[in-house]
Amino acid sequence: MQRVTPPLSGERFTVVYRFSGNREDAQAKAWEACIEQTVEFPYELLPAGDIPEQIIGRIESMDAVDENSYEAHISYAVEAAGYDLVQLLNIIFGNTSIKPGVRVEKFELPESMLSRFRGPRFGREGLRTLLNAPERPLLCTALKPMGLSVQDLAQQAYQFALGGIDIIKDDHGLADQVFSPFEERVKRCAEAVERANQQSGYHSFYMPSLGLRADQLLEKALFAKRHGAGGLLVPPGLVGFDSMRMLADNDELNLPVTMHPAFVGSYVTSATNGFSHYALFGQVARLAGADASIYPNWGGRFSFSKQECISIVAGSQDPMGHIKAIFPTPGGGMTFERMPELLEVYGKDVIFLMGGGLHRIKPTLVESSRTIREMVENI
Amino acid sequence: MQRVTPPLSGERFTVVYRFSGNREDAQAKAWEACIEQTVEFPYELLPAGDIPEQIIGRIESMDAVDENSYEAHISYAVEAAGYDLVQLLNIIFGNTSIKPGVRVEKFELPESMLSRFRGPRFGREGLRTLLNAPERPLLCTALKPMGLSVQDLAQQAYQFALGGIDIIKDDHGLADQVFSPFEERVKRCAEAVERANQQSGYHSFYMPSLGLRADQLLEKALFAKRHGAGGLLVPPGLVGFDSMRMLADNDELNLPVTMHPAFVGSYVTSATNGFSHYALFGQVARLAGADASIYPNWGGRFSFSKQECISIVAGSQDPMGHIKAIFPTPGGGMTFERMPELLEVYGKDVIFLMGGGLHRIKPTLVESSRTIREMVENI
Repeated sequence: MQRVTPPLSGERFTVVYRFSGNREDAQAKAWEACIEQTVEFPYELLPAGDIPEQIIGRIESMDAVDENSYEAHISYAVEAAGYDLVQLLNIIFGNTSIKPGVRVEKFELPESMLSRFRGPRFGREGLRTLLNAPERPLLCTALKPMGLSVQDLAQQAYQFALGGIDIIKDDHGLADQVFSPFEERVKRCAEAVERANQQSGYHSFYMPSLGLRADQLLEKALFAKRHGAGGLLVPPGLVGFDSMRMLADNDELNLPVTMHPAFVGSYVTSATNGFSHYALFGQVARLAGADASIYPNWGGRFSFSKQECISIVAGSQDPMGHIKAIFPTPGGGMTFERMPELLEVYGKDVIFLMGGGLHRIKPTLVESSRTIREMVENI
Repeated sequence: MQRVTPPLSGERFTVVYRFSGNREDAQAKAWEACIEQTVEFPYELLPAGDIPEQIIGRIESMDAVDENSYEAHISYAVEAAGYDLVQLLNIIFGNTSIKPGVRVEKFELPESMLSRFRGPRFGREGLRTLLNAPERPLLCTALKPMGLSVQDLAQQAYQFALGGIDIIKDDHGLADQVFSPFEERVKRCAEAVERANQQSGYHSFYMPSLGLRADQLLEKALFAKRHGAGGLLVPPGLVGFDSMRMLADNDELNLPVTMHPAFVGSYVTSATNGFSHYALFGQVARLAGADASIYPNWGGRFSFSKQECISIVAGSQDPMGHIKAIFPTPGGGMTFERMPELLEVYGKDVIFLMGGGLHRIKPTLVESSRTIREMVENI
């Protein structure tokens, strides 16, 4: 009998997968995942002992969801995930991502694993404190369109902040292009928002987009911090989930992080492969340190359903040990006209991200911003 | 008329997308992508001039593929992609990843963009030189199963190398777990392969898996280099494509890189969203510096078709300016029995990755390795 050294704790974490097919298919797929996500080795050749008994995944339950899909709880040894996000995601969905007919619905981690993750540094409460907004819905907008000069973007930032938008972020398409280089943009936009705050008495902040080279990511984030950025917009699909976690965990940065969904869409556009919206935009976002999670709202330019958006809210706040609740941040085609409906669904614990729509409400950006600010202050 | 500063070059790069739907649907989706991937802003509110004329995407052609899908060539200003991989991937598929019914088939970059990318440092020729194997198919295997001690893994590495396997890699599930910590594993396995080389006269190398924390990735890669690793296995789905590029570009490392497909499967499991196999495992892998690209072969444990695998070969070698051709590296359920069929399809410019299958050919790993080595030397 081969024992693993050092001895395994016996503690396990659980991933809830949905497998497509009839019971027999689903059972076979679940068993494949138990092997594929761990040893990737012919079962019959495994040395007897801990490896087949503990290291490989274990099907804890298997329940029909409907005629053609089954939900299985598969548990894995905590030691297999090595206590870091990269290897945890690898165990949850690494090679299995390449198989059709399997979707990660959610996961449950014991305290021994959760304690290794800081999670969101600020969370809902911390972000509300920073913005001096104890109760109301928060507001976010994006500087755009791509191609504008730094001066034009900074002027926009000033107007939005003056009108009371809480978080003024770069459009995620603003990277380090020649027409608005990162450093210059950050300095000017942060300065513009600060100038507006002095006049307005608000606590708005500028949040640059960090869709940047891996070897410059931390350095440019620190530059942004030094020059007055109040938060960081991070697209983990482009830079890696653990890079977002690294930025969120950095004590010198000490800034709230917002996750942008660019390049992660393929994980959620299939009903039969990938992640549930709950798991990706809620659970994974939190574990990776995001304080707010942007996703395309239903009825806008994208195809998420109302139900899927509501599941993201649940994922952003369902208990996960000490891991804080974060802000669902619906965007993508939001308009002023839809605000009453959205307020009804989302309530107050939300950040509304309105980009292009904010250019249509009133003749000026300041007035448009004031109009929506008044609306959320008076609900 | 608003002109962008500094003036745009007028040069454009092209992405070939496949849009689902009838001509009208496809046309609408293509137009949406032109906006979504660049300005994300209501077209009618754009300031007249360069932004609508040059910054937004431009549909260059639209051709029916079949009754329900159309292939569109969309061009973008080279300046929009900012000359780095992160922003290039963002323009190619950032927000559009969240839309069903659109798939990236391939992309074409002008020399002005390609010149900003080193691409694979070694490529096929460089890797053949390192391994002293000018013509034959190359061989790769994986140390596993997860849970074995460093001593057991190093013993495996020794046997594989002695038998003539060229590249002995960590299974991608080996990260930095307590049962085989990264540093100790790297030292022992690299040493074991070197010891075998001394006896055999071969030039095999050990390739550790870098599914590691973002803040430790470069540091641990450098550790591996100092302790005799001959290559790096990188899972860009887990650590980010540009992190792979960063490792490949690092002159101090100066090591060949192999891309592992863990966690990227969702980009290719849908026929109507994501990337073609050609683009992801071929073009993107090369641009991100991989010298070899692992993917699950047809007929194994995964579902790629023979046609899809052949398209990866094309993506690994089709002309891309100075960007070198790389090795297609089929794996995932490879067996000795299938080798004649695979040799016929792949020819000599291939790395065969046989993991579990190598434990079944002969009674010992050395004999199994020798058997397959002889086979590829004698074709």
